[in-house]
Amino acid sequence: MDGCSIAGTLEIIGDRWTILILRDAFRGVRRFDEIQQDLGIARNVLTDRLQKLVAHGILEKRPYQDRPARYEYRLTTKGIDLSPALVALMRWGDKHLAGGDVPTVLVHDACGTPLDQTFICWDCDTTVAPTEIRSKAGRSARAS
Amino acid sequence: MDGCSIAGTLEIIGDRWTILILRDAFRGVRRFDEIQQDLGIARNVLTDRLQKLVAHGILEKRPYQDRPARYEYRLTTKGIDLSPALVALMRWGDKHLAGGDVPTVLVHDACGTPLDQTFICWDCDTTVAPTEIRSKAGRSARAS
Repeated sequence: MDGCSIAGTLEIIGDRWTILILRDAFRGVRRFDEIQQDLGIARNVLTDRLQKLVAHGILEKRPYQDRPARYEYRLTTKGIDLSPALVALMRWGDKHLAGGDVPTVLVHDACGTPLDQTFICWDCDTTVAPTEIRSKAGRSARAS
Repeated sequence: MDGCSIAGTLEIIGDRWTILILRDAFRGVRRFDEIQQDLGIARNVLTDRLQKLVAHGILEKRPYQDRPARYEYRLTTKGIDLSPALVALMRWGDKHLAGGDVPTVLVHDACGTPLDQTFICWDCDTTVAPTEIRSKAGRSARAS
C-alpha cells in the first residue's frame, strides 16, 4: 500500500469542514447558502474550503442565478471518484466509533438494498478479504 | 453519508506518520526498530503514534524478545478493518495525484491478479457505481 498517495489524498480532503462539504455535495446540497445553513459554518471558512476544492478540480463552480450572482458547487468526475474512500471511512467509523450505530445507510438507488463495499478478484470471480491481499511493486516502482 | 463517522475516523488515522505506520503494519513491518528505520521517523514520534494506535485498539503490542525487552505491533481486527479505507484513499491518490503512476499494486494473494474495489448490491447481484447510490436514514437517525 502506498503511503504517499494516501497521505496526499488526506492533505486535500482530511480537513473536517472539507469532509462535511463533500458529504453535502454527495447528498445534493450544492448551493453556497444551503451548505452554509446545513453546516452552520462561517461564510469565510466555507468560501476558503470551496475555493480549495475547486482549485483541486474536485468541485466545479457554476452560476445558477444572475442577479444577484449565485453559485452552486457540483462534484466533478474526480470528486465523484472520492466516493469509495468516504464510504469506507464512514463504514469504519460507524462500526468502530459509533458502536454499530448507523446514522446513514447507503443503498442501491434502483432497488433500495443496502450496499456492500468489497474487494473483488475478477479472475477468480470472488470477493477477497483484506487478509487475502498482497502488495506488489507497480509500474513506477519497477521503473525507478 | 455521515460526516461525523468520516471525520471521527480521520481524527484517529489522518495524521501522516500514522498512515505510514499503518501501511508498514499491513506490509508486515511490525517491529519498533524496523518501522523506525523504514520510515526514518524520530523515535519519540514513533513511540507516540504507536501508543495512540494501541490505545485505540488498532494495533496490539506484543513482546517478541525478553532480554532486552523488544516489542512488535500487530494489527487487530479493528485495524485490519481499516484496509478498505486506506486502499480507497490510495487508489484515488494514485489516479488523481500521481497521474496514474502506480507505485504499489494490490493483488489477490491466491492468484496474483490485481484487485478491484467496488460497491455490490447482493440483491441484484451486480456492482454499483458511485452515481447509483442513495443515502437513507439508518437506525439511530430514525430513533432520535
